[in-house]
Amino acid sequence: MNKTEAIACIQQHLPEKRFQHTIRVMDTALELAKTYHIAAENMELAAIFHDYAKYRNLDEMKRIIINSTLPKDLLHYHTELWHGPVGAILIQQEYGIDHPDILRAIRYHTTGRAHMSLFEMILFVADYIEPGREIPGVEEVRGMAKENITLAAQEISKRTIHYLLSQNQSVYPDSFFAYNDLTRKINGGL
Amino acid sequence: MNKTEAIACIQQHLPEKRFQHTIRVMDTALELAKTYHIAAENMELAAIFHDYAKYRNLDEMKRIIINSTLPKDLLHYHTELWHGPVGAILIQQEYGIDHPDILRAIRYHTTGRAHMSLFEMILFVADYIEPGREIPGVEEVRGMAKENITLAAQEISKRTIHYLLSQNQSVYPDSFFAYNDLTRKINGGL
Repeated sequence: MNKTEAIACIQQHLPEKRFQHTIRVMDTALELAKTYHIAAENMELAAIFHDYAKYRNLDEMKRIIINSTLPKDLLHYHTELWHGPVGAILIQQEYGIDHPDILRAIRYHTTGRAHMSLFEMILFVADYIEPGREIPGVEEVRGMAKENITLAAQEISKRTIHYLLSQNQSVYPDSFFAYNDLTRKINGGL
Repeated sequence: MNKTEAIACIQQHLPEKRFQHTIRVMDTALELAKTYHIAAENMELAAIFHDYAKYRNLDEMKRIIINSTLPKDLLHYHTELWHGPVGAILIQQEYGIDHPDILRAIRYHTTGRAHMSLFEMILFVADYIEPGREIPGVEEVRGMAKENITLAAQEISKRTIHYLLSQNQSVYPDSFFAYNDLTRKINGGL
């Protein structure tokens, strides 16, 4: 599937506002890909499809989690965490997209995980910093992203955990593992 | 070992300030034990010995972690996390204290863990709120502890994680698991 086909396809699956967000994530991810010397093709597809499952029915997503190899503990966490893993399953089934970089980046774009690749970090960061986001302090993270993608990803995972704690919400283990792993890399000077 | 013997023993192993902290933790834990209908004897011993290994040589603690059934990942986290697990091993070896309530409470008193017992929560909370602590906001946690020990324990684990994140320090998984478990119990109304 080429870029034009992918964009046409995703436009049918998302409300206009989410589609515009998707385009901005794509542009941001491509800019970061250039900075960090990652080829554009797979990055484009990952960004275009990252929210593919965002508006799927919850019962359908639940069924997919149960009937796939996805970890079942997802069912015990916020439903907002489902669309990444479910999206990765669906685009493989429905469009035959099977590049591991793309599937992993989509699967983990909400939580992150330990040992994220550069490719995964770029989507994780682009989703947070795209120019439509008006999160307090996001400007600082945009600056970091240009200089040190690991630092930007750690900052995002830190902010996400702080936010969830402030809301008395449980935190999916991969979010914690992402934070610990990125923190180690930063403190170790990588 | 009775209370008087235990106190005499611990006094030899701790600097005066830490010994005074220990006595305050014991008094606080006994008060909470009364509130929550837990027998005093084991609680006393757990509180008296909770910091038993606090001033052990790091190399010795490392050796004990390596040569015991303790999880080896402790070695990759802050050394401040070692004295709880190592203390539980040592009091068993050196004094034959082997009641699982006591050993578990000492082992997890710094991090907490998922599925803490009431007994464990009392030591975890007492260590944080004893009257010598001057942590900002501790008064609020003292109030919680009297009404709802689970809420107090969740608040402490939340504050600990917030603090570690603000310091760019990694967080031991049991601390995260404690937070998630306590949060579920509170949101589930237990």
